[in-house]
Amino acid sequence: MSTNVLRTADGWWVVRDTRAIRIETKAVTTAELLADRAAVGEAAVSGEPGTPVAELAALSPVTTPCRVVAQMVNYRSHARDSGFTGDIPPAFFRKASGSVSGPHDAVVRPSHVKFLDYEIELGLVMGAPLPVGTVVEERDLPSYVAGLVITNDVSARDVQLTKTQFYESKSYPTFTPAGPHLALLEPGDFAHLLDLRLKLSVNGDLRQDRTLADMIVRPAQALTLLARFQTLDPGDLLLTGTPGGTALKAPPKAVEKIGSLLPPAVKWKAFFKSQARNPHYLHEGDVVTTTIATADGRIDLGEQRTPVADAI
Amino acid sequence: MSTNVLRTADGWWVVRDTRAIRIETKAVTTAELLADRAAVGEAAVSGEPGTPVAELAALSPVTTPCRVVAQMVNYRSHARDSGFTGDIPPAFFRKASGSVSGPHDAVVRPSHVKFLDYEIELGLVMGAPLPVGTVVEERDLPSYVAGLVITNDVSARDVQLTKTQFYESKSYPTFTPAGPHLALLEPGDFAHLLDLRLKLSVNGDLRQDRTLADMIVRPAQALTLLARFQTLDPGDLLLTGTPGGTALKAPPKAVEKIGSLLPPAVKWKAFFKSQARNPHYLHEGDVVTTTIATADGRIDLGEQRTPVADAI
Repeated sequence: MSTNVLRTADGWWVVRDTRAIRIETKAVTTAELLADRAAVGEAAVSGEPGTPVAELAALSPVTTPCRVVAQMVNYRSHARDSGFTGDIPPAFFRKASGSVSGPHDAVVRPSHVKFLDYEIELGLVMGAPLPVGTVVEERDLPSYVAGLVITNDVSARDVQLTKTQFYESKSYPTFTPAGPHLALLEPGDFAHLLDLRLKLSVNGDLRQDRTLADMIVRPAQALTLLARFQTLDPGDLLLTGTPGGTALKAPPKAVEKIGSLLPPAVKWKAFFKSQARNPHYLHEGDVVTTTIATADGRIDLGEQRTPVADAI
Repeated sequence: MSTNVLRTADGWWVVRDTRAIRIETKAVTTAELLADRAAVGEAAVSGEPGTPVAELAALSPVTTPCRVVAQMVNYRSHARDSGFTGDIPPAFFRKASGSVSGPHDAVVRPSHVKFLDYEIELGLVMGAPLPVGTVVEERDLPSYVAGLVITNDVSARDVQLTKTQFYESKSYPTFTPAGPHLALLEPGDFAHLLDLRLKLSVNGDLRQDRTLADMIVRPAQALTLLARFQTLDPGDLLLTGTPGGTALKAPPKAVEKIGSLLPPAVKWKAFFKSQARNPHYLHEGDVVTTTIATADGRIDLGEQRTPVADAI
């Protein structure tokens, strides 16, 4: 059974049903909290009545700066949406950790961004160093992954596709809402990862809804591939890809092949002209709600609820 | 007149001709050294005879972890090599700072990498925080950039092109040799940046040779564009792109357009089959030498000399 941790401006809390019990710790960063598991355990079994969760303003339980790494195209349903066929080489990209925001903060659209999209993703929070060269087997996962968190890999599609490198388009401030819960896992919880169901709605309209069974490269293999070149440390965050249902849909293959014969500027102008009729991109006033949980509630990362706002 | 700083396992040094004078500082990281400019200044004017530079084993003068950000396609000559025509949208990507190595360390080819390439780049070392939203004018550059360093943005082309995101292909350990000098600039030095000449040779064969005048997005504008989404801190490193002359050359435009009609796996197989006949990729035993300096020696980042080795 996992332990759900919340962070507020004045500290850390363990969630028990609708109430939160303060963790007596000097930890400021997520890495420091993970090093003080005894304090988390004490709060979890404490007899304190605690504070109603509804009265707490949750921040991201992942503190920054930290490394934020993300997996590209990692659900079969998203691969279909994105027009991929055949084998997809597993790839990673970085997000600036300055993009991490709270689970109820606004997602702010920079004024030059026209096509703002959402991507619910399961975030893995590292609990131990991952040196380059590490091979992580399924059974080793509890030694490296301390917990899970809901993330939204918010994406400026017009920046992403024209620049080809994803880094800027996914790194603007507020482009990685995280939380509310940091679910600290027991070793036995890892057997239930594939039952986790990711759901994202915009204004109550369900857009993404898949379990991890649709995932292409699963967490242990992802960490092994990442460790070919990148070290991670406790408190670092790996986003594991998004399922189908984003606003962006690739054009039909035939159209794409004709497009590839055009100069890039002409191709993208035509593509985004067609996207202007797509009603699924995010606009000021929209509200994005996300949940990730197993059906039996054994793992439940809470509900993230982020309004969308234009930069002022 | 810039001040050249070296780092060794036991501290920091100011270079004066062929000798190095120890800097009396407790600094361990580059950021700490930059905060102790008084100690650097004292070493620079000291009457000590110093130690022959040739007796010192230089490490990267940029310590890690730090942010390593790089500009994509940022010299006109490299854009031509890479098959770009028309406007190139300025783009950034990240490198793992675990890739940073010393100026005389071996570049190690991972066993799965077949097409190992070089890219000499001028590295900017930050001297002050760059918050998101900062606009950096040419005249502001000395307030943000503390110094310059030679870097080689070593690239595994087969990984880079098939994965589309550049992050992994440029992040393996030893894929960012840096140094030997960290040239700390005086405000007056910045007027001479465009006179800096980048030269890279492989086994004495000159492959890259351009001045910064060939650059597309210059440092002040690059920092402004980066600050749209990414904050930087003292000691962070920005690689500013490579000029023409890399081993990789894009295929002729007509061939590329035919290739774009093929499934990616087929296209890349054909492309790398053609690259197998290209003798310019790096192999074990090759030696890469790089220099960056103005013709008058006002700014001189020293000579980097890195052998190439296969992973064992």
